[in-house]
Amino acid sequence: MLKWPQAVTIKEVGPRDGLQNEEIFVPTVDKVHLINQLSRTGLSYIEVTSFVHPKWIPALADSEQVVKSINREKGVRYAALVPNQKGLEKAIESNIDEVSVFLSVSETHNMKNMNKSIQDTLPILQSVIHDAKRSGKSVRGYLSTVFGCPYEGEISHQKILKLCDKLLEMGVYEISLGDTIGVATPKQVQELLNTLLKRFSAKQIAMHYHNTRGTALANVTASLDAGIITFDSSLGGLGGCPYAPGASGNVATDDLLYMLHKMDIQTGVDMSELLKASVYIQERLGRPLSSHSLLVYQNKKH
Amino acid sequence: MLKWPQAVTIKEVGPRDGLQNEEIFVPTVDKVHLINQLSRTGLSYIEVTSFVHPKWIPALADSEQVVKSINREKGVRYAALVPNQKGLEKAIESNIDEVSVFLSVSETHNMKNMNKSIQDTLPILQSVIHDAKRSGKSVRGYLSTVFGCPYEGEISHQKILKLCDKLLEMGVYEISLGDTIGVATPKQVQELLNTLLKRFSAKQIAMHYHNTRGTALANVTASLDAGIITFDSSLGGLGGCPYAPGASGNVATDDLLYMLHKMDIQTGVDMSELLKASVYIQERLGRPLSSHSLLVYQNKKH
Repeated sequence: MLKWPQAVTIKEVGPRDGLQNEEIFVPTVDKVHLINQLSRTGLSYIEVTSFVHPKWIPALADSEQVVKSINREKGVRYAALVPNQKGLEKAIESNIDEVSVFLSVSETHNMKNMNKSIQDTLPILQSVIHDAKRSGKSVRGYLSTVFGCPYEGEISHQKILKLCDKLLEMGVYEISLGDTIGVATPKQVQELLNTLLKRFSAKQIAMHYHNTRGTALANVTASLDAGIITFDSSLGGLGGCPYAPGASGNVATDDLLYMLHKMDIQTGVDMSELLKASVYIQERLGRPLSSHSLLVYQNKKH
Repeated sequence: MLKWPQAVTIKEVGPRDGLQNEEIFVPTVDKVHLINQLSRTGLSYIEVTSFVHPKWIPALADSEQVVKSINREKGVRYAALVPNQKGLEKAIESNIDEVSVFLSVSETHNMKNMNKSIQDTLPILQSVIHDAKRSGKSVRGYLSTVFGCPYEGEISHQKILKLCDKLLEMGVYEISLGDTIGVATPKQVQELLNTLLKRFSAKQIAMHYHNTRGTALANVTASLDAGIITFDSSLGGLGGCPYAPGASGNVATDDLLYMLHKMDIQTGVDMSELLKASVYIQERLGRPLSSHSLLVYQNKKH
C-alpha cells in the first residue's frame, strides 16, 4: 500500500494565474473582495497579483492598488509575481510578503515569454532575488513548461535539474514546477520526481498542474506517491482560455480539496468557504468555470 | 518506482451508458453510424445499447433495431445491458455477442433502480446469466454505487466482496465496479482493490469511473497502481446530466487514451479515429461534451 502525506500546503494562485488570462478586467474592488474572501478560508498562501508591465497583462494593471487594499489576515502569506527590478520596486513599495520569479525550461518558450534567452534571464532573476531578500521578502521560483513545451516538446531532466540548482543557489526557498500546457501524465511525474527528489527535499519542490487534458488530479496523485507536499491551484479552476468553454486552467482548488480531504490529507482550508469564493468570481466573470466540485455544489443548492 | 501494466483493455460504453442519459433521442441511423465508427477505431469491446423497457429509458427504445443494423467488425465484441428475461430474449433474438447484468451494492439504490431488494434481484440475475450462457453469450456483471451511494453513503467492503462472489459463482466472467455518482478518490480505490485483489484476479475486475468531481483519471491511476487492466469509458465523456453543463458522465475515452498512451500503456485504439467519433456525436447532441482532449483537438483544428 502506498503511503501519502498527512498534510499538504495549497498555494492559491487564482487571483494571479487565473485572472491574468481573463479577457474581462475584473474591477479592483472585486479583486480585493475575492482576496479577502480567500484570506478567510484557512489558506496560508495567496498569490494575489503580478507586477508585470500592464502592457503585457492588462487584466492585472491594478496590482499596486490591489495589494495595498486587501485586508492582511494573520497566518496568510501574500505573494506576487515579479519579472524584473522595476516590478520588484513596486512589489516592495506595496509591501507584499513574498515575490515569485519565473523562468521557462524551454529556450523557445522563455524567449517568447521574456524576450530573452535563459542565459540572459538568469542574471536578472539573480539581482531580483538578491534585492528582494535584502528587503526581507522570501522568494519563490517558477519553472514553466517542465513537462512539455508547445515549441520544443519534452525538455531533458538534466536541464530541469540544472535550472533548479541555479534558482536554489540564487536563494529561492522553493521551486514550483509548472505543467504550463497541461500535457503531463503520472508516468512523467513519477520519472521527473524520481530524479529531482534524489537531489532536493520535498520541501523545496511544489507542483503546479494545469488540467488541459483532464490529468491534473492524476498527476497530483502521482506527486503524492512521490512525497510532494505542496501544490499550486486556482479557485474554480480559473485560467485557461475564456474563448474555449471548458478549457481548464490550473487544477481547481475546489477539486483538489475534495480529493485531498477525502484521502484524509489535511490542508487547513475550509471547502465550503472556498466554494463561496468560487461562486463569487464565477458570477463576476459571467461564465461557467471548469471546477467539477463547484458544479456539484451549485446543483445541490438548486 | 511503481510498475504499470503494458497494455489495458478499454470497454467503450458510450452508446449505452452515455446516450441513455440524454434527453434527446438520437435517431437510430445516427446511433448505428456512431457504433460503426467506433468499430473501426481498434476498440475490442463496445456496449451498444440496453434492453431495458423503453418506458424507463426512452433514449434507447430502438435497441433491437440498432443491434440488427450495425456492421459487425471482426475482433470487436458487441454487448448490451439486460435487466431481466424479457430483455434477454430480445438480446438473444438480435444476436448480440455478450450481455451485461447489473446490481447495486446499496440496498436503497437497488430498490430505486430495480424496484426490488438485492435479495430479490439475485435470482433474476441468476436465471438471466444461466440462460444467456446456454445461448452461447458471455455475461458481464456491473456493480453500481461501489464507492458511495447518494442514499446510504459508503458501502462496506465485506458487502461488495460478497456480491462479487455471488456474481462470479453465477457465471459472469468479469465484474465492472462502478463509481456511479463519481465520489471516489485514489485512497478508496487503493483500499477496495487491496481487499478485492487478494481474492480475485485482475482479469475478473474492471473499473467504471464517472468524472463528476474531476477525480476519474486519478482513480484510474490508483487502479493501474493496483494492477487493474480493464477500464470502462465513454467517448467524449458522454453521460451525466444534459441540464448541468460540464457535469461529467463516464470518464472520457478520449482523455483515458491520452493518459494511457503517454504512459506507454497500449490500448490498441486509434486516438484520432476515436476523436472523430466524439466530434460526430457531439454535433448530433448539439452541446459541448466534457472530454478535455476533444476540446484540445477542436481548438487545434481551428
